[in-house]
Amino acid sequence: MKPLAGKESIVVPGFSFASASAGIKPNGGKDLALVFSEKPAVIAGVFTTNSIKAAPLKHAIENIASNKGQAIIINSGNANACTGKQGLKNVAATADKTAVELNIPANLVYVSSTGVIGRPLPINKIKEAIPGLVSSLSPFSLKKAASAIMTTDTFPKSISRKIKIGNKTATIAGIAKGAGMICPNMATMLCFITTDIAVSPGALNHALKESVAVSFNRLTIDNDRSTNDTVFVMANGNLGNKIITKKSPFYNKFKKALNEVTYSLSRLIAEDGEGATKIIEVTVKGARTESDAEMAAMSIANSMLVKTAIYGNDPNWGRIIAAAGYSGAEINEQKTSIFLNKTKLVSNGVGTNKEKTAAKLLSGKEINITINLGAGSETAKVLTCDLTEEYIKINADYTT
Amino acid sequence: MKPLAGKESIVVPGFSFASASAGIKPNGGKDLALVFSEKPAVIAGVFTTNSIKAAPLKHAIENIASNKGQAIIINSGNANACTGKQGLKNVAATADKTAVELNIPANLVYVSSTGVIGRPLPINKIKEAIPGLVSSLSPFSLKKAASAIMTTDTFPKSISRKIKIGNKTATIAGIAKGAGMICPNMATMLCFITTDIAVSPGALNHALKESVAVSFNRLTIDNDRSTNDTVFVMANGNLGNKIITKKSPFYNKFKKALNEVTYSLSRLIAEDGEGATKIIEVTVKGARTESDAEMAAMSIANSMLVKTAIYGNDPNWGRIIAAAGYSGAEINEQKTSIFLNKTKLVSNGVGTNKEKTAAKLLSGKEINITINLGAGSETAKVLTCDLTEEYIKINADYTT
Repeated sequence: MKPLAGKESIVVPGFSFASASAGIKPNGGKDLALVFSEKPAVIAGVFTTNSIKAAPLKHAIENIASNKGQAIIINSGNANACTGKQGLKNVAATADKTAVELNIPANLVYVSSTGVIGRPLPINKIKEAIPGLVSSLSPFSLKKAASAIMTTDTFPKSISRKIKIGNKTATIAGIAKGAGMICPNMATMLCFITTDIAVSPGALNHALKESVAVSFNRLTIDNDRSTNDTVFVMANGNLGNKIITKKSPFYNKFKKALNEVTYSLSRLIAEDGEGATKIIEVTVKGARTESDAEMAAMSIANSMLVKTAIYGNDPNWGRIIAAAGYSGAEINEQKTSIFLNKTKLVSNGVGTNKEKTAAKLLSGKEINITINLGAGSETAKVLTCDLTEEYIKINADYTT
Repeated sequence: MKPLAGKESIVVPGFSFASASAGIKPNGGKDLALVFSEKPAVIAGVFTTNSIKAAPLKHAIENIASNKGQAIIINSGNANACTGKQGLKNVAATADKTAVELNIPANLVYVSSTGVIGRPLPINKIKEAIPGLVSSLSPFSLKKAASAIMTTDTFPKSISRKIKIGNKTATIAGIAKGAGMICPNMATMLCFITTDIAVSPGALNHALKESVAVSFNRLTIDNDRSTNDTVFVMANGNLGNKIITKKSPFYNKFKKALNEVTYSLSRLIAEDGEGATKIIEVTVKGARTESDAEMAAMSIANSMLVKTAIYGNDPNWGRIIAAAGYSGAEINEQKTSIFLNKTKLVSNGVGTNKEKTAAKLLSGKEINITINLGAGSETAKVLTCDLTEEYIKINADYTT
């Protein structure tokens, strides 16, 4: 199943979406988004592992113990992080105002923020914009919401999948904004997934955690994890299916479709990495454990030397094997092989002199690095992008 | 005590040094160096933690169990890494030829290499150059040796200290080449220290490990650890002092001087980081453990966002607190403070609005970032440099 084509609306039965300009972004762009379910939904969330968590995450982590949610309001342009007690009050004020306008209980409203750290949220501007935001809710506005959560993303990111649950056709759709922490906005990976399938809280939590582990947690732009990273999924049961639990026959099908949505959004984020000219997929095979495979893949994907080499069309496999070597993963040098796209550059730990062939292939936009560690049979895949002068410009170009 | 001024020779009694061109570097530059002690010395070494180790390191790790050494021959331009069995044979051939020319046992000769990975060492060129190298040995050529081990370093790096051991004046001198792995040479941190002090093998090993832990292991250019990183220290006892053991009254004085040499060389390497315009010293205070302090400092020093912000004169403390937050170190947000040079940017986890003052100070060449985690009383210091477009150019500009 492919993502729906660019121009079509994505509709998730029972959900509506909205966007508005509250004046948080200096350029007057859309900076508020709303995701709303016409009835209370089961909600699950995954939040940054950063010890420094923004105020909305502290609020959400407490609130989500109920597994219930009906609305998520998102602002871009201000992270509401490192803002002390006032930051927490502003989250509550945002949720309260949204609840009043939607006429739902405040504890069913979640808040997400992305933007600069350490500045007070312009709460009055947000409160003033909420009535207009609510009144523009529409089932056809998912892509507008995707645009309003952008910071320096160069395109809005949305993906949907349709799957059969028995004889019913269900929808899973997600919107996301980019990783790579952006100046003056310290950006964040945010993702909001909606589905009309009925799923139990336990199954939804479990599926989301596993899905994030193999998608957003295997995506690295610059290895900087923000204070605001958040993934929410809301399942409102509009489909009328028998509730999916972990033991249900449809659980794996649901999880697979959810994985496709999160993985596809991860790819879109990698493609839109700051300054990126290429998307890089690092596959580690032959690892002793899956954790070893992931460590080695992350190490290669985070290596500035590997990323600059790919940018420069340089099949510099020495940098790849070195990054695997210091990853902490077990590696058997005499059995190691490395492929760049389909060219085998290293066989049994020694070069094959195929650099010229490989250099030509590197001029493409999609680069696959595959390394076999020769230590076992586990595997992992990580997405990243190349590292360019443009990344430096974007992130250094700021004067207080 | 300061390093000796630039033009003066550094002499370490009983040691001589040499450099030569073997034709390994395509530009014909000096690519062989030799460090020689007129009598067998006590030797200690610290090697890369990368699982992929270059051939000369495998040879040295085996050889150094004897704690004895008399000569180190170093080539630049070729790492002799990922070169299979032939690589090991070439190390042995290099050591053998050097031993014959010096008329000493081959097991007292150590080999170091730095350069491109995965290409056969041009062993015949090296063997042909060794007689000339040996015949040019001179007590006054330490700085020539420092030049011959350079790859894309922009200046040679040498430091010496004189200390009193009883009524005798001893010398400790080191040469090093830069970190930051450089294309087409995948560069390496190499350091060779010589001293005329008599030190026991146990004391020398212990002092070197502790010294490396707080200098080279707290230096990061791009977090890529090479297959060839090596630090050697040779102590030949020419001073005629009573052998220093771990219990000796002079042990701490010796260790302090050794620390000064390795720390000063680390600073020179950071100053000469690829594309660097500024040296950055990250100090973490108030950590629960020293390991926490080191983790947080390394996390900040490795953050591409922090490094680009410093390059852009942007006092973006949000990036600093976020990097500390994801380091794994315990951090108490409500007690965290951050200083850029002497400007307090964050107090009790909240910004102080001093960004404009801090931005002015950032235009200098030496930047100090200090963060107090508010979780204890341990501290650690890490050196790095800023991240610039020039780094990308240097590392991407290569065509096979």
